Amino acid sequence: MGRRDPFTKCRLPQEVEAVVAAGVYPFYLPVEGRLGGGEVVAAGRRVLLAGSNDYLALSGDPRLAAAGVAAMEELGAGNSGSRVLNGTLALHERLERELAAFLGHEAAMVVSTGYQANLALSALFGPHDVVVADRHMHASLIDAARLGQAELRRYRHNDMAHLETLLEEVGDDRGAMVLTEGMFSVGGDLCDLPGVAKHAQRHGARVVLDSAHDAGLLGAGGRGAAEHFGLGAAVDVQTVTFSKCFGTLGGAVAGPRHVVDYLRHSARAALFSASLPPSCTAAALAALDIIRTEPQRRRAVLAAADRLRAGLTRLGYAIPPGGTPTVALPMADALTCCRFWAKLLEKGVLANVMLPPGVPGEQPLIRLSVTAAHTTAQVDRILEAVATVTGELPGERPAHALGHRRPNARG
Amino acid sequence: MGRRDPFTKCRLPQEVEAVVAAGVYPFYLPVEGRLGGGEVVAAGRRVLLAGSNDYLALSGDPRLAAAGVAAMEELGAGNSGSRVLNGTLALHERLERELAAFLGHEAAMVVSTGYQANLALSALFGPHDVVVADRHMHASLIDAARLGQAELRRYRHNDMAHLETLLEEVGDDRGAMVLTEGMFSVGGDLCDLPGVAKHAQRHGARVVLDSAHDAGLLGAGGRGAAEHFGLGAAVDVQTVTFSKCFGTLGGAVAGPRHVVDYLRHSARAALFSASLPPSCTAAALAALDIIRTEPQRRRAVLAAADRLRAGLTRLGYAIPPGGTPTVALPMADALTCCRFWAKLLEKGVLANVMLPPGVPGEQPLIRLSVTAAHTTAQVDRILEAVATVTGELPGERPAHALGHRRPNARG
Repeated sequence: MGRRDPFTKCRLPQEVEAVVAAGVYPFYLPVEGRLGGGEVVAAGRRVLLAGSNDYLALSGDPRLAAAGVAAMEELGAGNSGSRVLNGTLALHERLERELAAFLGHEAAMVVSTGYQANLALSALFGPHDVVVADRHMHASLIDAARLGQAELRRYRHNDMAHLETLLEEVGDDRGAMVLTEGMFSVGGDLCDLPGVAKHAQRHGARVVLDSAHDAGLLGAGGRGAAEHFGLGAAVDVQTVTFSKCFGTLGGAVAGPRHVVDYLRHSARAALFSASLPPSCTAAALAALDIIRTEPQRRRAVLAAADRLRAGLTRLGYAIPPGGTPTVALPMADALTCCRFWAKLLEKGVLANVMLPPGVPGEQPLIRLSVTAAHTTAQVDRILEAVATVTGELPGERPAHALGHRRPNARG
Repeated sequence: MGRRDPFTKCRLPQEVEAVVAAGVYPFYLPVEGRLGGGEVVAAGRRVLLAGSNDYLALSGDPRLAAAGVAAMEELGAGNSGSRVLNGTLALHERLERELAAFLGHEAAMVVSTGYQANLALSALFGPHDVVVADRHMHASLIDAARLGQAELRRYRHNDMAHLETLLEEVGDDRGAMVLTEGMFSVGGDLCDLPGVAKHAQRHGARVVLDSAHDAGLLGAGGRGAAEHFGLGAAVDVQTVTFSKCFGTLGGAVAGPRHVVDYLRHSARAALFSASLPPSCTAAALAALDIIRTEPQRRRAVLAAADRLRAGLTRLGYAIPPGGTPTVALPMADALTCCRFWAKLLEKGVLANVMLPPGVPGEQPLIRLSVTAAHTTAQVDRILEAVATVTGELPGERPAHALGHRRPNARG
């Protein structure tokens, strides 16, 4: 009898095997071309992309490409080293200064992915700390907590009473941090930042906010959930990504200068990874400039979001009126979810499927999102497709959704 | 008395404070421009870069830029989503196919950084497994082990007797994996892959090889340490990065198809992170093409490496003759190390400083590396600068180095 083989675990998750067998595998579908205006070529045809995080439709903006091309031609395709040793460009420093000023923090540290920006937080999570985190927090934050040394305690999604209870249980000899997303990635709902800020202040806890989805999108100036709620001063440390509103790749941690300087010398995801290439750095700078100067893009995507949400509500889905560009439709099970997705695709609409694990409540979801590039007619096409598929293959439409909050509601 | 503040930990490491105070802070020095031929503008002047991982000098190759520019203009500055949901391009699939074929594996999965390629391995490290790893393994592999569920046991650097002992101690009811870098990132030495392969086979263990530094560089075809030793078949899973020989950003895991498919659906660093932008993907493809067709680049960098190593040996440093483009000069302490670095910079040579933690044996090091772009005269300039600084400020020159192996030696 031989030794156990560590590769025997290498099977697809059961749900995935089932959807492969049913011919409705929804993952890793390659985009073969981008047509602009929210349309792409996929599965051999022209389809309407209703599932990207390109909220401001900047990834295809020629100004980002022009900036990226110029940087690549001048500085090369990569930096061949980590920021700390040999991969820092003057361009990184400029992006850090501009981003810190934009977000209202003293300093920022740019890293190569948003995932790694969140992993970098693990250096803040010391053995004497307790991290009190929303249960819906993104996988990258869970990984940061695993890599850190702090105790992790999780409160029910946006449940401020539960947050308060958990904070009360933390002894004064331990540091406390509240960790939440500003806009939650899956359901598109907002965190109760006023509640978080209040309880954190009362209990002497620091607030760490992941603004991956809301930076660029929310607030009059596009500064994200903190600006939206008028609570910038309550956020101690903030992470952002450049792969959503900023249209490229990369991420950053912003906060007090001494905290950022500490992270530069302690965060392993920053120290031990190659730096962001010139092209992405320049594209992120171009995106930041557009975010600062073109509020009409935020208005456009939020108007499209309102139309999408209102239409889905009329179809019987439990979507709160108004809100962010992302909505999640709970489905009865994984197979139904993937059939729903496949039928949407047949109708020319490419949505996202989210299956457990990695989904709050182990709930299979169809995730839909719109961008500033979606016209009214395109949003209506998405709605028509959802209406038809819902008739052919009813999704589950529970009375409760994933706990949305209106982004237009303060407090 | 208030609560403990989690930010009180946010101080610079003591060694860093000391070198700041001494005016010889060596980190995050911005590159202001690239001049080609191994020269950059930094600290306000033209300097010779003697500390990059751009071994084949491809990061500034116009063919990479041209490929990246074309992809960025056609497909945008980013993909605004993860591979699994909405960020897969036909270009990613092509890179995966070509990379798998090049490395001699059935399949490959491309992710957005080399750090994340290694983190993705954590999905292979299950609760019934033991990972037996070289003590000099890169920080990203340590993080992968922390995120995984396997027990981690570490053998003394390249000590095959110790590896054997550790493997013997693993019960047959547990899966066993040997984890090592092909070329070690800090000291530039090679792993004893023949020894690893022999012991792994004898004990029914899988071999997981990090080829971040050797893929593209070593072996007649540039396939890395496995090809160099003629042991491709002994390597079960292999990771590579695109930020060293490939001149851009990104990384990949290659291996049997079912293992890679499993990782696509289980590795959190792949599932929950935005995909590699078109520019970097196209640049990596261009680099792969050059790596396959221009062996003269490998010959050029290995010749420069030989010259550097021979010269350093003549200066009294314990550098084995022949070898890889990276060498590490042990320094007495952090302050000496940074003074050495600053004096090299005064002489127009930009090296790397590596301080604990993150350095094997807690040994401060000056890390030097050469690329295919360095001329003989430039290598001699590096050596002259080291000779002068060694005279002014003797470095520590122990009789033992970091356990180098000659890359030209088989078996």
